[in-house]
Amino acid sequence: MAAYTRFFAYLTVVFVAFMFVNGLFCKNPMAVTADDFFANGLDKSGDTNNRLGSAVTPVAAAQLPGLNTLGISIARLDFAPYGLIAPHLHPRATEVFTVLEGTIYVGFVTSNQPDNRPNKLFAKVLKKGDVFVFPQGLIHFQLNVGKTPAFAISALSSQNPGVVTVGNAVFGSQPPISIDVLAKAFQLDANVVKLLQSKFCASA
Amino acid sequence: MAAYTRFFAYLTVVFVAFMFVNGLFCKNPMAVTADDFFANGLDKSGDTNNRLGSAVTPVAAAQLPGLNTLGISIARLDFAPYGLIAPHLHPRATEVFTVLEGTIYVGFVTSNQPDNRPNKLFAKVLKKGDVFVFPQGLIHFQLNVGKTPAFAISALSSQNPGVVTVGNAVFGSQPPISIDVLAKAFQLDANVVKLLQSKFCASA
Amino acid sequence: MAAYTRFFAYLTVVFVAFMFVNGLFCKNPMAVTADDFFANGLDKSGDTNNRLGSAVTPVAAAQLPGLNTLGISIARLDFAPYGLIAPHLHPRATEVFTVLEGTIYVGFVTSNQPDNRPNKLFAKVLKKGDVFVFPQGLIHFQLNVGKTPAFAISALSSQNPGVVTVGNAVFGSQPPISIDVLAKAFQLDANVVKLLQSKFCASA
Amino acid sequence: MAAYTRFFAYLTVVFVAFMFVNGLFCKNPMAVTADDFFANGLDKSGDTNNRLGSAVTPVAAAQLPGLNTLGISIARLDFAPYGLIAPHLHPRATEVFTVLEGTIYVGFVTSNQPDNRPNKLFAKVLKKGDVFVFPQGLIHFQLNVGKTPAFAISALSSQNPGVVTVGNAVFGSQPPISIDVLAKAFQLDANVVKLLQSKFCASA
Amino acid sequence: MAAYTRFFAYLTVVFVAFMFVNGLFCKNPMAVTADDFFANGLDKSGDTNNRLGSAVTPVAAAQLPGLNTLGISIARLDFAPYGLIAPHLHPRATEVFTVLEGTIYVGFVTSNQPDNRPNKLFAKVLKKGDVFVFPQGLIHFQLNVGKTPAFAISALSSQNPGVVTVGNAVFGSQPPISIDVLAKAFQLDANVVKLLQSKFCASA
Amino acid sequence: MAAYTRFFAYLTVVFVAFMFVNGLFCKNPMAVTADDFFANGLDKSGDTNNRLGSAVTPVAAAQLPGLNTLGISIARLDFAPYGLIAPHLHPRATEVFTVLEGTIYVGFVTSNQPDNRPNKLFAKVLKKGDVFVFPQGLIHFQLNVGKTPAFAISALSSQNPGVVTVGNAVFGSQPPISIDVLAKAFQLDANVVKLLQSKFCASA
Repeated sequence: MAAYTRFFAYLTVVFVAFMFVNGLFCKNPMAVTADDFFANGLDKSGDTNNRLGSAVTPVAAAQLPGLNTLGISIARLDFAPYGLIAPHLHPRATEVFTVLEGTIYVGFVTSNQPDNRPNKLFAKVLKKGDVFVFPQGLIHFQLNVGKTPAFAISALSSQNPGVVTVGNAVFGSQPPISIDVLAKAFQLDANVVKLLQSKFCASA
Repeated sequence: MAAYTRFFAYLTVVFVAFMFVNGLFCKNPMAVTADDFFANGLDKSGDTNNRLGSAVTPVAAAQLPGLNTLGISIARLDFAPYGLIAPHLHPRATEVFTVLEGTIYVGFVTSNQPDNRPNKLFAKVLKKGDVFVFPQGLIHFQLNVGKTPAFAISALSSQNPGVVTVGNAVFGSQPPISIDVLAKAFQLDANVVKLLQSKFCASA
Repeated sequence: MAAYTRFFAYLTVVFVAFMFVNGLFCKNPMAVTADDFFANGLDKSGDTNNRLGSAVTPVAAAQLPGLNTLGISIARLDFAPYGLIAPHLHPRATEVFTVLEGTIYVGFVTSNQPDNRPNKLFAKVLKKGDVFVFPQGLIHFQLNVGKTPAFAISALSSQNPGVVTVGNAVFGSQPPISIDVLAKAFQLDANVVKLLQSKFCASA
Repeated sequence: MAAYTRFFAYLTVVFVAFMFVNGLFCKNPMAVTADDFFANGLDKSGDTNNRLGSAVTPVAAAQLPGLNTLGISIARLDFAPYGLIAPHLHPRATEVFTVLEGTIYVGFVTSNQPDNRPNKLFAKVLKKGDVFVFPQGLIHFQLNVGKTPAFAISALSSQNPGVVTVGNAVFGSQPPISIDVLAKAFQLDANVVKLLQSKFCASA
Repeated sequence: MAAYTRFFAYLTVVFVAFMFVNGLFCKNPMAVTADDFFANGLDKSGDTNNRLGSAVTPVAAAQLPGLNTLGISIARLDFAPYGLIAPHLHPRATEVFTVLEGTIYVGFVTSNQPDNRPNKLFAKVLKKGDVFVFPQGLIHFQLNVGKTPAFAISALSSQNPGVVTVGNAVFGSQPPISIDVLAKAFQLDANVVKLLQSKFCASA
Repeated sequence: MAAYTRFFAYLTVVFVAFMFVNGLFCKNPMAVTADDFFANGLDKSGDTNNRLGSAVTPVAAAQLPGLNTLGISIARLDFAPYGLIAPHLHPRATEVFTVLEGTIYVGFVTSNQPDNRPNKLFAKVLKKGDVFVFPQGLIHFQLNVGKTPAFAISALSSQNPGVVTVGNAVFGSQPPISIDVLAKAFQLDANVVKLLQSKFCASA
């Protein structure tokens, strides 16, 4: 394998500092340190001073390079009193949600059921120390139903789980989805759709 | 391994006809025939005589047992003139959509973007013979923009892809999601939410 | 993570336009458009004016970059009257085959069976709207048994399924497999093997 | 598919209440409730009144049936002052560890390195809100280096991650590993090995 | 979870001794012993007194239950002088082949190439201690080119790799593939196809 | 797709000779030869003239580039009389071990058991032709219990399985794990820990 090795050695001169895995840069293994497996700041509440009164602080491969290829990430979720994380889904991950402070009403809706039966909602009011599972790709939400701030930590089964907030994706995309589609799909008057689009556009 | 084999043989008396894989029954391999890998009827239009003017005819593991464990399924999609498959997603599959007849406006919306930038819509008007990809877990829709019926065939990267129609899951679940959550999430008046819930309840 | 970020920023100057995933180039995510998820031309019959009277038009990651990493692809299959897609297999994918026009005799052969029992053929004559599954890695074929052109669409459970046409791989490879191997394996006279090799060489 | 359906219907009489996936029982989907996705008690400290001064409270598929097949689980980790979770590994999972209270010295050791270079230790003292990654299958430990109780939550990339505590597996297994193996492997006198085995046997 | 636990307890009475994973029976974990991870006999040559002068002795999940779900298996391959393992493929596994005795000519053929270029043969004469890789789903063969018996051991990347011997699958299946398909595909006279079918039928 | 193709063509000038998959360089597919799937030397005993009297000769993706992405590798294991492969584990692979010469005592220890029951040892004395499975991530060992050299071949279910030798990782890492951790975890006096660390440091 001598020729092959020389070929590698030559490339090493040019590419000494990095490689690519899953589209992210990888450090030279010799240069890796403990800090590549470390992140901080999850003790601090995110800024919930916004329309919904909630904040998400992710720790995924984009924030913590050592997670790349390892299939897991976490996030801290903060809620002002009555704060809401609006209905959303993770296209590539299941979420395990643990309440660390407060009282939170959570739920997810199943896939469409056979025979036109309605989608089922599985919901529950959670207290400190309670755990709930949101299966991959299903729409779910979390609402602080208490008078005090709440927070939780979530584990997600991907280093790059993604988030799709339903309202924003449907009514706030750029460019917008055509009004015909939205009016018919959501059984709304076209003017209501336009109003919603302008609201989501402003609140993005 | 003689003892082990006898143990197996004993069980075979009891369980001669079936085993379980992924929660579905499996036939005795000796009894499998070509029909276990066969389905029919995809030449027939689904019934589009409904509110949205569309129909989905799936061929997945529930319909075609031979697909179990194989990671793929298909569906036929029919559209009356101006018929719509409302915004929806597949929690466990990417979809490759091919137009076989008609002119169909399709699109999907990306995951939430960094820095509060709006979700992007990737949309296009497709004609006969055009192909479009809807990545796993992302919200997408298909609207017949022609005056004649249209149909398409979709390939899905799971034998059990699931479907979540956004409007039905959000406004039509049983039991319903609390009005507080929906009013705040979608920036709608509580009365509008109630009206939507009654509409989706009736149209299910 | 400041130092790490600077390191990334520096690289971004050099690698602004592309990254690699699975050995394919990836566009800068900011530059992606709907056309990266789009292909066309599946309404047009492939050219079946060849020895076998068939044509395959693939839409996989090589043709449609947006499919990379998504685990699915499709193909259009055309058949002249009595046209044949010769026995072949996909090393990395299961195929779901749907007849859109014509009458097609299809089949696949199982893996070797225990106790030297012969491999089983599962075969069926399919009509328009019929669906058949060819499990991953098993040899299968499709023959138009009608007097008119036929075509089908196939879904494949990989963005890069690969195709191995058995006759070409066995008798038409470059360099050729040794005649000793082929004569003994296929119970053929060495001269017949040579003749076959010259035919497949010419027809490639 | 009528005959097949009848076959299923017959079995449904016998197996109406359960199916098997991954060796665990599955409830009839019609009987699933929100409680199948719920666990509680993670607000309570585990009992750290033991030799090491630590406790692990897992929430995996064995405790929370809804996690089966979803590829993720969590655990609460409690530490008395100077309490230790001894060097251990997870054979099927990466761990993301978040400190919720206290000051914890953590570390993992890499795989064997080329050219007989020593395995590298990546270690760090973590405070409240700090996050650290322990990649799949690598030996790691956590020591409360503060004078007060500490606790953390861990996310694991499997619904059934497994735990192998190195000291217990090596010196406390039943039956014990032969003294010849352990004395030679750990460069210990046979009497020291025997002493260790008796200690681990007693402390199990 | 009390009700759930009782439900489990009840079932345990009925199903105390086994569960199913991947369609194979699993022993009660309490009853597992070292013998469930053990097989023997790979020191003995298989019986090569047959038409091809070769024998395959597999050690996969069917022979060694402890391999189930673990994604790997092995086999011993024996060759009389000039013995052949005829062109075949593994639908679900890559093979790593190591020569332990003898001189063996091996090769595999790539997938079909773009632009009608012929499939490539990668072949080599291997001696004792040489290793060769046959990627998943590609047709490959092994021929003892020495005057003495040879043997090898193969590692396969699945607990259930499957084997498709090309000649047997194509010309020896039950029922047979139609002569029209085979004559056209292999550029053979119908009478030659019939002759081949009778030969493979007899040699099965 | 013309613009896209030109973009590719341009890059091809710069990157004509290589691409990256899983962080390893890939050769231009046109330049691949049979030697990229070939390794040799497994007929030669590794050098067992060391403290443990054993040697491991791996053939994984680092040694045999054609294994990259294929999920399998092998190794030759040599033992002097009474030679030991010390307790170790593979973080990303199950191992199937086959004795080719000699008499070898092998075993693995299970994960921690429920209810503080001790980890179980599954062990056996193997002779020539015997096969044993070491499941992914579990600690195992192999000891030549004969008076003559022994050797074995192992198949591993990853192209990059990794090895963690427990003694080296725990007592020989650089920098060392704190003595507090090791003394408490292994129920050893701090001086014994220091002695072990100095021994493993010297023997690395």
